[in-house]
Amino acid sequence: MIIINEEIKNTGRIMDEILEKYMNRNSIYREKILESMKYSLFTGGKRLRPIMAIKTFEIFNNNIKLILPYAAAIEMIHTYSLIHDDLPAMDDDDYRRGKPTNHKVFGEAMAILAGDALLNLAFEIMSKDVLENSMSLEDYKRKNRAINEIANYSGINGMIGGQVVDLFSSYENMDKDKLLFMYKAKTAALFQASIVVGGILGGAKEEEISILREFSLYLGLSYQIQDDLLDAEEDKLIHKFTYLSYFDKEKSKEDMITYTNKALDLLEALDNRDTAFLKELTKTLVNRNY
Amino acid sequence: MIIINEEIKNTGRIMDEILEKYMNRNSIYREKILESMKYSLFTGGKRLRPIMAIKTFEIFNNNIKLILPYAAAIEMIHTYSLIHDDLPAMDDDDYRRGKPTNHKVFGEAMAILAGDALLNLAFEIMSKDVLENSMSLEDYKRKNRAINEIANYSGINGMIGGQVVDLFSSYENMDKDKLLFMYKAKTAALFQASIVVGGILGGAKEEEISILREFSLYLGLSYQIQDDLLDAEEDKLIHKFTYLSYFDKEKSKEDMITYTNKALDLLEALDNRDTAFLKELTKTLVNRNY
Repeated sequence: MIIINEEIKNTGRIMDEILEKYMNRNSIYREKILESMKYSLFTGGKRLRPIMAIKTFEIFNNNIKLILPYAAAIEMIHTYSLIHDDLPAMDDDDYRRGKPTNHKVFGEAMAILAGDALLNLAFEIMSKDVLENSMSLEDYKRKNRAINEIANYSGINGMIGGQVVDLFSSYENMDKDKLLFMYKAKTAALFQASIVVGGILGGAKEEEISILREFSLYLGLSYQIQDDLLDAEEDKLIHKFTYLSYFDKEKSKEDMITYTNKALDLLEALDNRDTAFLKELTKTLVNRNY
Repeated sequence: MIIINEEIKNTGRIMDEILEKYMNRNSIYREKILESMKYSLFTGGKRLRPIMAIKTFEIFNNNIKLILPYAAAIEMIHTYSLIHDDLPAMDDDDYRRGKPTNHKVFGEAMAILAGDALLNLAFEIMSKDVLENSMSLEDYKRKNRAINEIANYSGINGMIGGQVVDLFSSYENMDKDKLLFMYKAKTAALFQASIVVGGILGGAKEEEISILREFSLYLGLSYQIQDDLLDAEEDKLIHKFTYLSYFDKEKSKEDMITYTNKALDLLEALDNRDTAFLKELTKTLVNRNY
């Protein structure tokens, strides 16, 4: 447990450094939007998704600098989604991670543009990496596949699709199937992007990539249900549909553990690979109290 | 003139068809966001940027289906920028092209998400094309270069950067240099993306790509000044800084013609290439009355 926390901290630090490098621009007339983008990128995010990407990559390949642009891109996409999600027209949140939300500091217009700019920058960074650091046809193929996976998991078939269901659900149109779709799309999708891309860029075999895709789906689902349980314990005012809208705490906890075990079982299928970190991470996320 | 209008119409129709193909999805739970995306994609846009991309491509290569995903992506990016630009927090426009703006029909939250989804979809489409339709290392290189050009011209160094200046300018901080930067970033950048990518994917030589890059910059500048002049004629209420905030009508018209001539001169440098369409387009855009 101490070891995994150390590893999470170290990988998070690597991520902070690369994000700072990407954001260290001095663009005349655009100082303010850069400030707004940086504000949300460096507000105490846990870097969970980049850590998943990097540590999965490391199972197959030690040269982690190869995945950093893609891990950074995923963090930028995650960050933009939070900025837009917090807007008055959406969840209307004043605080995130204990600090005023982006639009509270920079205004709504800038928050919208900073979000757009972060999504766009994710693809600037990745496409630049493809052009500058591809040595072979194989490199091009892998990197383009990574970009395509990230784009798919972020769009209407992934994260954005989940946001839509989250925002526009009502008692009349919500049900268990739709809730599960929402969890897959809203939460699991970016976990899947991170872990699948870690495998693809690391050079995992096709069957290993399939296992990682399924593993990260179950990891995402158990993570989201644990989130619901934690919110319920804190007696947070929930305006939205959660697992607990349909199941009691016992059943929710049971399902969370089922998903966790499915995830852990899948890792067993990665024969001869060192999955110690992913296993510990899975257990840590289920037992977290934040 | 009749011929070029015919060509514009035909190319616009090709674009409509490909966009319809891309948007013809039947995704459960996401019917509404797809409707919102389609609403703005098919509200009488002139398809100017895709037409530029396709017709530039055609100078070098007849197989225009190769550029359609990229032309569609540029149109999606242009469309998302209009949706977000019209939002209450931004320009707060109720009408565009004579129809209610996206947020007026679908609400602000959906308009924000539909914009995000269109930007994201642009990269989904392009990265899918790279994976599915690349035959050689050369193909991968060209297509990735195209994606990178589009990403750069759309982001904080291009379109978004221009939007920021447009939204946050005041008498205290605006000047002629900044105005020119804004015109380059806000208007010329996507023209440049379209025309440069047309050249790159068509197989233009490096020196030809450079000429196209400069040509499209001047085309964008003259287009924007003509826009200002047309708005001034209509006595539209302009809350923003335009060319006419710094120059009178005569000087503005003079500069517009200077930029047009620079653009036309650059086309002359494309020896042995059939630039008839681009020439006519340049003249048409300057003489337009819409």
